[in-house]
Amino acid sequence: MAPDVTDRMSDSSSGREIDRLIQLLAKLPGLGPRSARRAALDLIKKRDSLLVPLADALNKTAAQVKICSVCGNIDTIDPCGICADGRRDGGSICVVEEVGDLWALERASVFRGRYHVLGGILSALDGVGPDDLNIESLMSRVAKGGVKEVVLAMNATVDGQATAHYLADRLSGTGVQTSRLAHGVPVGGELDYLDDGTLAAAFKSRRPT
Amino acid sequence: MAPDVTDRMSDSSSGREIDRLIQLLAKLPGLGPRSARRAALDLIKKRDSLLVPLADALNKTAAQVKICSVCGNIDTIDPCGICADGRRDGGSICVVEEVGDLWALERASVFRGRYHVLGGILSALDGVGPDDLNIESLMSRVAKGGVKEVVLAMNATVDGQATAHYLADRLSGTGVQTSRLAHGVPVGGELDYLDDGTLAAAFKSRRPT
Repeated sequence: MAPDVTDRMSDSSSGREIDRLIQLLAKLPGLGPRSARRAALDLIKKRDSLLVPLADALNKTAAQVKICSVCGNIDTIDPCGICADGRRDGGSICVVEEVGDLWALERASVFRGRYHVLGGILSALDGVGPDDLNIESLMSRVAKGGVKEVVLAMNATVDGQATAHYLADRLSGTGVQTSRLAHGVPVGGELDYLDDGTLAAAFKSRRPT
Repeated sequence: MAPDVTDRMSDSSSGREIDRLIQLLAKLPGLGPRSARRAALDLIKKRDSLLVPLADALNKTAAQVKICSVCGNIDTIDPCGICADGRRDGGSICVVEEVGDLWALERASVFRGRYHVLGGILSALDGVGPDDLNIESLMSRVAKGGVKEVVLAMNATVDGQATAHYLADRLSGTGVQTSRLAHGVPVGGELDYLDDGTLAAAFKSRRPT
């Protein structure tokens, strides 16, 4: 049998709590077995400044974090802070794949409407169909009226664009305006380092100065 | 003021627990602000399979993990499992910089003696002197008698080797045999990719076949 790579030592009979901690840390995205061991050691070293506060934050998150019943965002209140914020434009809904995309758009401070989190993306390869995503709740939000524009802010991947296409199709009969994010040269990007697809998109969508 | 890079969103008024969780995760070695956000989202998604167990493991670790009063190892018992294990050779002590180094040697299963964790390394640059490390406890372990060999398994860095040199000096009057790890070509290593220092060390320590 291959040794468990998350094992601190090969034949330790004690310290199971540490091994368990390393195993769980290794499941976090971005942490492999080696960095999980380093993280566990660091946590034990910084018991009062890091380990205890982190355990506390995890417990609080587990107890308090909810999924917004309107948009699928994650927050400690339901509806979430964005859905509950009366200053935000309810006539505009930005559809994103995941909560992380919502956070990214909020950090950029470009959008003052509401969101809708699909919770994934259509993918024939992974067997994800329309029923697996929060599409019906989007349709009923639109059907209630008051929505003027739906921004389809999917990732610029094949599956992302296919999902955006599908949603544009579904929404085409409802009278709302659908839109997509522009493709082009990233700000700060150098032409020499861009892929052909991005360059072609940027060229095709060129604008008069 | 520069925005806090660990902020999920720039102006969120709710979800402070999530922000706090991200800030703490970003302090782990190997996780930056971006991967901390991804890890937090992943934890929230996998509430029952990852978030709650991790909080649990952290609490247990905080409550149960101790530092061995003999060797400085981390374990749930004191003396630690290695110091308490009668099958291990008390006549041989392997001195390492950190607990992670002890774990690495245990995984390699090359050493059946006891350990001594210095808790750092001599460094003029960082202002770490002999009094900041567990050197006196090593000297008193040796002074008690019964120790035949002390393996100085410091890292092959300048500070590591300086520390090994210092310890060899301190131990030279006690009658114990000190030794260091061999330098050479790593197993599986290709000469073409090795640095000059390693190659030179491997050549100098060449052995008749």
